[in-house]
Amino acid sequence: MTEKGDSPVARTVLQQCLQARLQVRPAEGQSDAQFVQIHRGMVIYICFFRGATDDVLPKMVSTLLNLRLCESTSGKMVSVSELPGSLLIVPQATLGGRNKGRAMQYHNNINKEEGLRLYSKFVSLCEKELVAAAAASATSGAEVTVKHGTYGNRQVLQLDTNGPYTHLMDF
Amino acid sequence: MTEKGDSPVARTVLQQCLQARLQVRPAEGQSDAQFVQIHRGMVIYICFFRGATDDVLPKMVSTLLNLRLCESTSGKMVSVSELPGSLLIVPQATLGGRNKGRAMQYHNNINKEEGLRLYSKFVSLCEKELVAAAAASATSGAEVTVKHGTYGNRQVLQLDTNGPYTHLMDF
Repeated sequence: MTEKGDSPVARTVLQQCLQARLQVRPAEGQSDAQFVQIHRGMVIYICFFRGATDDVLPKMVSTLLNLRLCESTSGKMVSVSELPGSLLIVPQATLGGRNKGRAMQYHNNINKEEGLRLYSKFVSLCEKELVAAAAASATSGAEVTVKHGTYGNRQVLQLDTNGPYTHLMDF
Repeated sequence: MTEKGDSPVARTVLQQCLQARLQVRPAEGQSDAQFVQIHRGMVIYICFFRGATDDVLPKMVSTLLNLRLCESTSGKMVSVSELPGSLLIVPQATLGGRNKGRAMQYHNNINKEEGLRLYSKFVSLCEKELVAAAAASATSGAEVTVKHGTYGNRQVLQLDTNGPYTHLMDF
């Protein structure tokens, strides 16, 4: 969390899942919609604000992958790396919304080009770190994966939880 | 949103849904688990912080039900009252979490008794206001409903969205 008074440069909402499925390409003409899916793990909804730079990314990834946000089968709180669980990363520009009267405004969001660049780099860093953690883990044979939505798309999502354990983390 | 620097007394995360199903009683002995379900509408995850009083409730309910957070069939952004949509209210104490190192702490959350009381009153106010809005709405025959989770339970949730449009609103 940023200290009170600091403006955050990125916001994430985190939900634990048993399985989650996200559309990455809508149906078009004769081609069916395409989906990505994870089983046990964590969904990361993410939004970057104005002023976000590459500098924030390593800290975000390390925090999100190592915070004890997940309940293990024995009931102990562990990180998604320790679980080990998979990640589904969902770009979610609406997280930057502030209300003005009855309308939501998104003036604080980063521009699309820069948002896409930071998002892509965030996904790559998550992949690198989660795979390294899984390789180092004692739980051999656990298959973890990082899946992610297409930036700018409508995020058609289906989620199944055993308690979503929704957390908010600003950076 | 509270002004920067003010400490919020309640946090909500809002997600649009096509359908959502929440367990309100786990399976026990010979009795099956019990669920509540809504179709099109909005899921409200809610957490009260220390210092929350009844005063905040009417403003919360009026804001959440009237903010243009939902996409109508014509693509226009409308409120859940205007949609008209149903509500699924999910108590979510984890929303009050702050990290200390790798652990999450919930020291800012309200005590359970007071949280339950505010939660119950919030649910009642939502029911009253959504039913009144539906009655006043031009869309006759639209069946809207308010369903909610059991305070203190594990919130086993299944969610189906056409874009979760995740928003955060602090009060």
